Amino acid sequence: MTPFKLTEELVTEIEQLIENQKDTELVSLMEDMHYADIAEIIDELDEREATHIIKLLESDKTSDVLTELDNDVREGILNNLSAKEIAEELAELDTDDAADIVGELPSDIIQEVISELEDREHAKDIVDLLRYDEYSAGGLMAKELVKVKEDWTVLTCVKEMRAQAENVTRVHSIYVVDADDKLKGRLSLKDLLTTSTTTHIKDVYIPKVDSVGVNEKPEEVAKIMSKYDLEAIPVVDEIGRLVGRITIDDIVDVIREEADKDYQMAAGISQDVEADDSIWQLTRARLPWLFLGLVGGVGAAAIMGSFEEMISKHAILFFFTPLIAAMAGNVGVQSSAIIVQGLANDDLKGSVGNRLIKEMLLALLNGLALAVVLLLFTWFWKGDFLTSLAISLSLVAVILVAGFIGTFIPLFLHKRNIDPAIATGPFITTSNDIFGILIYFWIAKVVLGI
Amino acid sequence: MTPFKLTEELVTEIEQLIENQKDTELVSLMEDMHYADIAEIIDELDEREATHIIKLLESDKTSDVLTELDNDVREGILNNLSAKEIAEELAELDTDDAADIVGELPSDIIQEVISELEDREHAKDIVDLLRYDEYSAGGLMAKELVKVKEDWTVLTCVKEMRAQAENVTRVHSIYVVDADDKLKGRLSLKDLLTTSTTTHIKDVYIPKVDSVGVNEKPEEVAKIMSKYDLEAIPVVDEIGRLVGRITIDDIVDVIREEADKDYQMAAGISQDVEADDSIWQLTRARLPWLFLGLVGGVGAAAIMGSFEEMISKHAILFFFTPLIAAMAGNVGVQSSAIIVQGLANDDLKGSVGNRLIKEMLLALLNGLALAVVLLLFTWFWKGDFLTSLAISLSLVAVILVAGFIGTFIPLFLHKRNIDPAIATGPFITTSNDIFGILIYFWIAKVVLGI
Repeated sequence: MTPFKLTEELVTEIEQLIENQKDTELVSLMEDMHYADIAEIIDELDEREATHIIKLLESDKTSDVLTELDNDVREGILNNLSAKEIAEELAELDTDDAADIVGELPSDIIQEVISELEDREHAKDIVDLLRYDEYSAGGLMAKELVKVKEDWTVLTCVKEMRAQAENVTRVHSIYVVDADDKLKGRLSLKDLLTTSTTTHIKDVYIPKVDSVGVNEKPEEVAKIMSKYDLEAIPVVDEIGRLVGRITIDDIVDVIREEADKDYQMAAGISQDVEADDSIWQLTRARLPWLFLGLVGGVGAAAIMGSFEEMISKHAILFFFTPLIAAMAGNVGVQSSAIIVQGLANDDLKGSVGNRLIKEMLLALLNGLALAVVLLLFTWFWKGDFLTSLAISLSLVAVILVAGFIGTFIPLFLHKRNIDPAIATGPFITTSNDIFGILIYFWIAKVVLGI
Repeated sequence: MTPFKLTEELVTEIEQLIENQKDTELVSLMEDMHYADIAEIIDELDEREATHIIKLLESDKTSDVLTELDNDVREGILNNLSAKEIAEELAELDTDDAADIVGELPSDIIQEVISELEDREHAKDIVDLLRYDEYSAGGLMAKELVKVKEDWTVLTCVKEMRAQAENVTRVHSIYVVDADDKLKGRLSLKDLLTTSTTTHIKDVYIPKVDSVGVNEKPEEVAKIMSKYDLEAIPVVDEIGRLVGRITIDDIVDVIREEADKDYQMAAGISQDVEADDSIWQLTRARLPWLFLGLVGGVGAAAIMGSFEEMISKHAILFFFTPLIAAMAGNVGVQSSAIIVQGLANDDLKGSVGNRLIKEMLLALLNGLALAVVLLLFTWFWKGDFLTSLAISLSLVAVILVAGFIGTFIPLFLHKRNIDPAIATGPFITTSNDIFGILIYFWIAKVVLGI
């Protein structure tokens, strides 16, 4: 495969074709392109050009293109389409993708778009999906699935399945339900084909099937599917009725988004921004965290100001405040990152107490190793053993406290059902900076007998 | 589904059953458990108990359990198994999982294990896979796939497929190859079933199929499969011959590992460690980065020491060094994180120059906003406008430089084919601390006319 590569030349070529109204050339150029590649191109065009292409190509292709576009680009295009045109795109999509698009439409035109849908069953499924929280298994699932009733015979089953499978792109499993639509189990295709046609489904199905509830969080669904290597999982409502199905490709997106979010939080970037967002969006995502850092820095300055009388005799203490603050920050970030990741991957075992004791031991080990190096360096530099001892002892104490805070805060937030990822990054570095400097000057005061 | 929950009671119960040699109870307790759940239990047992369970249960179950275990637990168990016992486990596994396990064995027993494999074809496939770099498409792929030759008739094809499909757990696609085994396209099951049995494959197959080369990096494979929503992708060698197939569940692992690695790098943790690793492992992963921070802090102290003459008249400058260092660090981490993430997701467009200009504008905007706040605060606090101005001007300059370094370094590393993720975290904060403090004192010197 020669992989598709988005180049400026290609974008310019397409812009010129649009400019010169060469629609036939445009269609033939894009005919063999994958919808994900067309979406990459359209993301680079302006709204008028983008709309032109969407209107020009067949909806069996453009509907998939729409699902892959950046949110703001899609919004612009949909604004330029009539309710009927939008409905034509939705008709080609699976219910989960269609519902995602409908959910983004202004509420006053949703009804119009839905009423333009010719397939009333499809319309009903989309409307059903709209009522689920986007951030839940219900918000992720599609209605397309193959289900059979336990009291059917194999023959009825095969007939019904043929009809249902037409709407399902990839059949992962055949689900078995009872008369009330409650999920009972699944059916292997092989058993279905090797059993007499008069046998009843209830005599051949596998009564064991993994499922998730509609209100389950996407990360939980992701954990279950990747732990058990599932390619699809059925979704049941509060009373066990089969209401939808989540496939692995949606879960891949969840895993990526989740990882991106935690990473950004750790780096002090709120909201989901990308490098290509506007300066204004990036500022809104970054400035609040920087402001937090500013407040912390001012706090640190105030603490140092209150120890000002020490500055004439022990100026060296002030030279090492950035070191103390940086080490407190680094240790805090390391500890919290390990905990946040452990919580995300569900592999933290044992009690909070044991976890803290372990982190304290680790901090003590690291702290002592670093303190010895620092002691030797400062002693050699300034020849003042007592001051060097004060700085090094403080380093150990600060690392211990930073490790404690970095471990405790995310565990505490998690217990309170708050996303522990907010405890990484600027939050932990700023609070550790302040605690670190405070401890540092206290210890120095005691050791130096000031 | 009642989800499986690993509890201490369950582990204790199993340990007691092992202690009291209640093998029948053990087997019946674990009979209905999923292999991923059994693996979670075994990870909690000691080596003797773990080995006991692996020997006790049937290899069609334990083989999958082995693939899910922590590396060190698996290593311990395999040490206690004979070559023949290991071969029995491998016989039940797909070639990719089997090759991963063989790759971990001490080299002197690999040959013995391979020679104990009864299925010589399976053995040959495993040996073939061993020669690929673990960190490549070849290292990820399995040999299990369904392939048909283009000059076969539909009838031959169906017969051959039935035989091949026996070894393939999930058939995602039927691949079409020529007489030299070169990948030509794929076949839809529907076309196969609706075409006359005497038709030749070359007249019905779809000549378009995505594939990746054996040497492709796992992240690239992950990008392609998630971009095009593929559940499986064929792998071809240097001359286009079909040699294997990668499935989405392996890719989910790649995405998770990649995200974990970047996250840990940003937090200053090298190597792939988990919260439950030993204190020694955690120290090795964390101490080097802390040492880097120590060196940076000592450098900062040395810089401040060289400005010592300013301390009597302008002590306040020294109070704000932690603030300056922290802001430089925060901005650097934000900028580098955005770039690293953009590179990982392949959505950085435009030239390096434009990217730097944008980041500079952003830094200027953020820097000015923060500097105004800081100016007002320090002026109010100490009543010395000129010093306040020096501190605030420095803040803007430091943020600009930090933004530049944070943007440039990862782009530069990426150009040189070095993982840009190492530029996040302690590396960028430490260098920005030093640059920041240096710039700060320079500017202060100029503004205050010292």
